[in-house]
Amino acid sequence: MFFASDNWAGAHPAVNERLSRESTRFAAAYGTSELDLSIEKRFNEIFEREVAVFFVATGTAANSLSLASIARAGGLTFCHSEAHVIEDECGAPDFFSGMRMVAVEGPNGKMLPENLIERIARYPQDAVHHGRAAAITMTQATEAGTVYTLDEIDAIAKIAKDNGLPLHMDGARFANALAALGTTPAEMTWKRGVDVLSFGGTKNGCWCAEAIVFFDPSLAKDFSFLRKRTAQLFSKSRFIAAQFEAYLQDDLWLGLASHANAMANRLRAGFASLNSARLAWPTQANEVFAILPKAAAEAATAKGAKFYDWLEPRDMPEKVGKDEVLIRMVTSFATTEADVDEFLSICAAV
Amino acid sequence: MFFASDNWAGAHPAVNERLSRESTRFAAAYGTSELDLSIEKRFNEIFEREVAVFFVATGTAANSLSLASIARAGGLTFCHSEAHVIEDECGAPDFFSGMRMVAVEGPNGKMLPENLIERIARYPQDAVHHGRAAAITMTQATEAGTVYTLDEIDAIAKIAKDNGLPLHMDGARFANALAALGTTPAEMTWKRGVDVLSFGGTKNGCWCAEAIVFFDPSLAKDFSFLRKRTAQLFSKSRFIAAQFEAYLQDDLWLGLASHANAMANRLRAGFASLNSARLAWPTQANEVFAILPKAAAEAATAKGAKFYDWLEPRDMPEKVGKDEVLIRMVTSFATTEADVDEFLSICAAV
Amino acid sequence: MFFASDNWAGAHPAVNERLSRESTRFAAAYGTSELDLSIEKRFNEIFEREVAVFFVATGTAANSLSLASIARAGGLTFCHSEAHVIEDECGAPDFFSGMRMVAVEGPNGKMLPENLIERIARYPQDAVHHGRAAAITMTQATEAGTVYTLDEIDAIAKIAKDNGLPLHMDGARFANALAALGTTPAEMTWKRGVDVLSFGGTKNGCWCAEAIVFFDPSLAKDFSFLRKRTAQLFSKSRFIAAQFEAYLQDDLWLGLASHANAMANRLRAGFASLNSARLAWPTQANEVFAILPKAAAEAATAKGAKFYDWLEPRDMPEKVGKDEVLIRMVTSFATTEADVDEFLSICAAV
Amino acid sequence: MFFASDNWAGAHPAVNERLSRESTRFAAAYGTSELDLSIEKRFNEIFEREVAVFFVATGTAANSLSLASIARAGGLTFCHSEAHVIEDECGAPDFFSGMRMVAVEGPNGKMLPENLIERIARYPQDAVHHGRAAAITMTQATEAGTVYTLDEIDAIAKIAKDNGLPLHMDGARFANALAALGTTPAEMTWKRGVDVLSFGGTKNGCWCAEAIVFFDPSLAKDFSFLRKRTAQLFSKSRFIAAQFEAYLQDDLWLGLASHANAMANRLRAGFASLNSARLAWPTQANEVFAILPKAAAEAATAKGAKFYDWLEPRDMPEKVGKDEVLIRMVTSFATTEADVDEFLSICAAV
Repeated sequence: MFFASDNWAGAHPAVNERLSRESTRFAAAYGTSELDLSIEKRFNEIFEREVAVFFVATGTAANSLSLASIARAGGLTFCHSEAHVIEDECGAPDFFSGMRMVAVEGPNGKMLPENLIERIARYPQDAVHHGRAAAITMTQATEAGTVYTLDEIDAIAKIAKDNGLPLHMDGARFANALAALGTTPAEMTWKRGVDVLSFGGTKNGCWCAEAIVFFDPSLAKDFSFLRKRTAQLFSKSRFIAAQFEAYLQDDLWLGLASHANAMANRLRAGFASLNSARLAWPTQANEVFAILPKAAAEAATAKGAKFYDWLEPRDMPEKVGKDEVLIRMVTSFATTEADVDEFLSICAAV
Repeated sequence: MFFASDNWAGAHPAVNERLSRESTRFAAAYGTSELDLSIEKRFNEIFEREVAVFFVATGTAANSLSLASIARAGGLTFCHSEAHVIEDECGAPDFFSGMRMVAVEGPNGKMLPENLIERIARYPQDAVHHGRAAAITMTQATEAGTVYTLDEIDAIAKIAKDNGLPLHMDGARFANALAALGTTPAEMTWKRGVDVLSFGGTKNGCWCAEAIVFFDPSLAKDFSFLRKRTAQLFSKSRFIAAQFEAYLQDDLWLGLASHANAMANRLRAGFASLNSARLAWPTQANEVFAILPKAAAEAATAKGAKFYDWLEPRDMPEKVGKDEVLIRMVTSFATTEADVDEFLSICAAV
Repeated sequence: MFFASDNWAGAHPAVNERLSRESTRFAAAYGTSELDLSIEKRFNEIFEREVAVFFVATGTAANSLSLASIARAGGLTFCHSEAHVIEDECGAPDFFSGMRMVAVEGPNGKMLPENLIERIARYPQDAVHHGRAAAITMTQATEAGTVYTLDEIDAIAKIAKDNGLPLHMDGARFANALAALGTTPAEMTWKRGVDVLSFGGTKNGCWCAEAIVFFDPSLAKDFSFLRKRTAQLFSKSRFIAAQFEAYLQDDLWLGLASHANAMANRLRAGFASLNSARLAWPTQANEVFAILPKAAAEAATAKGAKFYDWLEPRDMPEKVGKDEVLIRMVTSFATTEADVDEFLSICAAV
Repeated sequence: MFFASDNWAGAHPAVNERLSRESTRFAAAYGTSELDLSIEKRFNEIFEREVAVFFVATGTAANSLSLASIARAGGLTFCHSEAHVIEDECGAPDFFSGMRMVAVEGPNGKMLPENLIERIARYPQDAVHHGRAAAITMTQATEAGTVYTLDEIDAIAKIAKDNGLPLHMDGARFANALAALGTTPAEMTWKRGVDVLSFGGTKNGCWCAEAIVFFDPSLAKDFSFLRKRTAQLFSKSRFIAAQFEAYLQDDLWLGLASHANAMANRLRAGFASLNSARLAWPTQANEVFAILPKAAAEAATAKGAKFYDWLEPRDMPEKVGKDEVLIRMVTSFATTEADVDEFLSICAAV
């Protein structure tokens, strides 16, 4: 019953097999091998256009360097108040980009467009003292386990365009969002107005595979220097490429994300039918934020279940009662129905 | 005939097997799993004392964060004029540590102690304008393929101690140096006065395994924040731990390094007996810097050999003739005698 | 009728006279002259204890370097949501200190202690992902023209102490706050628990005189390097010292601040008696935030009055009506009763 | 006998008088006053073209922000090995620009063109590991008290142009160089190919007046943000403008520099005629680097003379004897013939 995070899972057998195969070869280093180059082409296919793709070590690196590549002096980046870039990356986005993250409130982990508009208006392009609006970043799927609809992405993208701001998407759980919406990578990104994407594979079946995708390759002209200067250029880069090759083949990645989402939905449905927990936010991808009786959480823990107690955000509409606890449960490609059902039965028994 | 770099090799079967085994499990993320913790203990054994160990993504990260952890405001770090930290890491050490790298000359890729003393003396501790001496970093094995003897390390360490400066060792090819000297990890580091070590596994049989080792764990008190803030904390950190587990088991790492060194020596000996090349510097680990007739280099390239033309350092005593070329050849755990002999026979034929 | 800012005023005659006298001498550069040293002693007297004092070029520099001197890796600094350090310094505090500013809400420009406690609790000392609480900064007088009482400073200082955090005070308008409270510099700072102070003279009669005061000189051990590395060390530093000498002599500074405060109070009283404006916040130092009929503001502007339209903070309790405007009026040592009365009579006439 | 540095002098009476006059007025802050704007126009006249001008607090700030404004990710700036930017600014240029300074050797404080070409060639535009050439900075007058001729500037500018690199000039002693060459500001800068200039007034009669001049105003588009973010925007900026107004009026600045140069030349001539000292480098502006008998230096010190013992650069052709000392003497607008003659007579007497 490993629900602590999708990054507690291992690697998918297909990914592992491809890595094993790669281990026996020699190949050019630092991202110049034929395999590296072939994966760049693969991303073109996946996104139905020419893109520039770069591998980095972590999701934090993907976000931080994405922002660095679109940074402006004295710039501000707008993000949701609970976004990973502002609350979970120890200031790496600020350090790499030189920008300040500005929190924008909104329910269900999503920036409310009117709030975003209001915040941006406070930082016009000549605001030498305040700093100037320079970028927007949105998370898909969000930190609250929800998913921006295509219309909601359109709304954010329109604000970006109206203000001349590049739009970044933190896609640490990109596949989960894609599976949830049942749309295409192109539709969920550049066709909506996204300029740069953090494309995560680690949480969904790879063990270390993160990429930055520039939909306008001209944005990437300094990127190789930004990446090297932040110590993010792998010498044996092709082992990242190999993971992506397996991951993207025959829609493996979408299948894995669908499975993870289904497991989260099974949890959600179980809680609902048993009336054993309330949800802090809707379950739309592979995360369930549940308000449980403390006794249930303790019983599950006693039986070996892993999950995180979650700090109640200040603006959460559902309040956590005295005998309750807010927990985060994350499912992954490796979560089984049996694990889900065991957890539910423990809750039911309490 | 892959002699371009040891980072063109793949991963050793034992490392690969261990990774495969790891891929099927769940485990705690961000370096908190039992496997991560067990590897920390393994490093204690390897170094015969309590150390603090942290994994990072690249050798550049290991060096840059090592320096960041011992940085002082307005500080200067002294390194050899051809050191990786000053010439091959795109400014990452400066960016992460806030320090300036000061080049110290010396033959064979090693800082000459008298030069080091002279340079440090120019930056006393109250030198607000010039900046103050803050750290020394030495590379073992060096960028020139040579190895500091224990006495030579002592000499550098004494200068560090006399000036109150922490001493860092860039051990991207630590195992090769260790095998060359036939000494122990403890003897080559903290027993000599090294305070922080970049411990590289990637070039010697892993595909991505770099660690920073603090011989005084109190130096590491801010390290977890420095690492996260530079986007170097892997979520599935245990896959690095798994590589190190296999790498360090039953002295595998030393055997692989000995093999690589032997292959370099075979090249060296071949050049000598054939009189087909001169050496720019002595071959003491797994790199051979050879001054070849251009015709030989071209013939080898035509047969598929891979190596790098090398920019002649300004102070190289052997001069490269008009019809000659300076090349760097690097051997690895995966280099075969057959490859070496084929290269030598091509040279002999020219 | 110059009410735009206290930094629109010139320099006090006594300051100017002292500068003139200084201009004819030779003296040692970079803060080492006897005059520089004598001013350091003067600060000891002013603050009734040994302090370490450093001059810098701007208030932004004073704040940013104060925070840099107490920064920790991955650290967060807590400040009011409208504080200069977060909203008016273009990211300089973040850039110099490497820390992120975290906004804490509270009425009247003051952090509410319970909000501060709640925010700090979210960033414990082992919060590698979130970042860790590292400093608190409070502004005295505040950006809203209010003044923390000694008890209110105590409350903030207690939170700092309870959490092991250094406490910085942004005293760009330190003298105005001091005059308002009728207390001593020592009582308003270190006796309450303030560790580092930005001591501003520029807004109150100097033309460029800003200092950082460390109440624990050991906090300043790296400061000279931090200052030089941010290009804030004046060569002819003694011209700053000369300004401070005149400024601090015979309580000139306190007299000037009292005058400025009195002028603000005269404005406030005039608005109240005429019923011609409401106040956004109480007038406690030398700033008046007035909600005026637009017609009055336009009439004053037409007659040459200078002031700023102010962006309505999101949490301001008084709402600005459709035919009204929120303006900020700042008085200084150079403001005259005649100017105040002329402004009031224009408003009365509308 | 104040020969320690030109920054030990006070301020010229005309500058002081103008400051006094300014002190009685109100005016707009942050560089937006009419006086500020009028000085910008004055710079257009001085340089015979439209330029963009920005004031900063120190010469270090002028250099560091000039480089920041032309920086590229992973960029390297080439400068003379004894340049202020690499040896005397505590890393501020590196910190503000994110670039590494690369030392280029050359006699008499000037980069030797062939050395510069050789160094640049090592850092081509695709050198992700090494970093890429991004800027050249030259000092006029140099740190050795010499002056690049117009032809020598042409030679450096040609290298800059051939390599597509912007050229910065550190003009902390710009007026002294100009007076020495007897040319115009335009001829010594943009007509030669200089793109950005640090224009210093502090050492030549102001007490704090440093400007950055962009000969291509489009280079300055981000500058106001870069300056604010480094805490270099004065609120009472017009006091800098006032100093420049007096400084530039009726060629005052050139007269002051000519005087300082003449005083240095009088020292040089005195040493030569008395045969009492050798020169380390030619005296071409307002600095004399003299190798004196220790006894002479001690006698002068005993009589109150101020000067600095100078660390012998490694490549200085004249060697300092056992009973000798290398000293730096700097003359200024305030140096008198009497002081020079007294010093010379002390030396003659020894």
